[in-house]
Amino acid sequence: VTRIQHSFHPPIDDRYFEDYVPGAVHEFPARSTVEQDRLVEFATEFDPQSLHTDPVAAAAGPFGGLIASGWHTCGILMRLIADNYLSSVASLGGAGIDELRWPTPVRPGDTLRLRTTVLDTTRSRSKPDRGVVRTRAELLNQRDETALTLIAINFVALRDPN
Amino acid sequence: VTRIQHSFHPPIDDRYFEDYVPGAVHEFPARSTVEQDRLVEFATEFDPQSLHTDPVAAAAGPFGGLIASGWHTCGILMRLIADNYLSSVASLGGAGIDELRWPTPVRPGDTLRLRTTVLDTTRSRSKPDRGVVRTRAELLNQRDETALTLIAINFVALRDPN
Repeated sequence: VTRIQHSFHPPIDDRYFEDYVPGAVHEFPARSTVEQDRLVEFATEFDPQSLHTDPVAAAAGPFGGLIASGWHTCGILMRLIADNYLSSVASLGGAGIDELRWPTPVRPGDTLRLRTTVLDTTRSRSKPDRGVVRTRAELLNQRDETALTLIAINFVALRDPN
Repeated sequence: VTRIQHSFHPPIDDRYFEDYVPGAVHEFPARSTVEQDRLVEFATEFDPQSLHTDPVAAAAGPFGGLIASGWHTCGILMRLIADNYLSSVASLGGAGIDELRWPTPVRPGDTLRLRTTVLDTTRSRSKPDRGVVRTRAELLNQRDETALTLIAINFVALRDPN
């Protein structure tokens, strides 16, 4: 049985490698709403396909309307992770991402929130001040559908390297 | 021996599933340069960590200066893919991404270009009008270092479904 926790202790400005417990599931109250103007603007810069940029063409397309670029959705996820999950005092950068999927399209007005599951944590052999935290991160929309899921691999500093 | 091709035929507005040949490697002449102001602006919105947003703090940090958010680098990759590799007449959306890595940091002023390798192509069993193309996509900087590598999984329409 998975116990979902609706907060994460300690607070984000005192959170280190030791605080990421394998198996822990956290859901965060923060919400991010995707406005149509920003959706179109992002896609015009980075992903200029009509299903992301042209409301009329998108309405006639396979999704029946505009959907966000998947990379915009990744940006929204990253912002929620930076604000709620990974501590700026301990985060030493992202090593990579595995198994990125977009199961449900994100549409203008959708409101997204973050769920994280700590998959495993491994201390570095070569650098004793840090470890690797692997996290399943998901964005859920206002209907609790999964808009985005990925595995994030992050370097995180230890509170106590000894 | 891998033969690198410096163009891709047919032209992008007449490119379908049949044109993606497993094993084919393409390097594209298009370049995208990352300006510091945009790098900081993107990160302020989506990835507000000091190594991406604060030149002074970043100079004292592990990379000795500002580096782009990895998600910004993904956006740059997507734009080069949309402009050079995937046809808007045939692209039916992205199914997902595997093995996303950022081996070399992207710094202000870096100039990035796209290399693609078609890994495999599979016709859909349930939808005879389309197939899945799996592509290794890489961004190379002006020193030919790999800034980003990932496997993109895309749905692409067939020219001739019969």
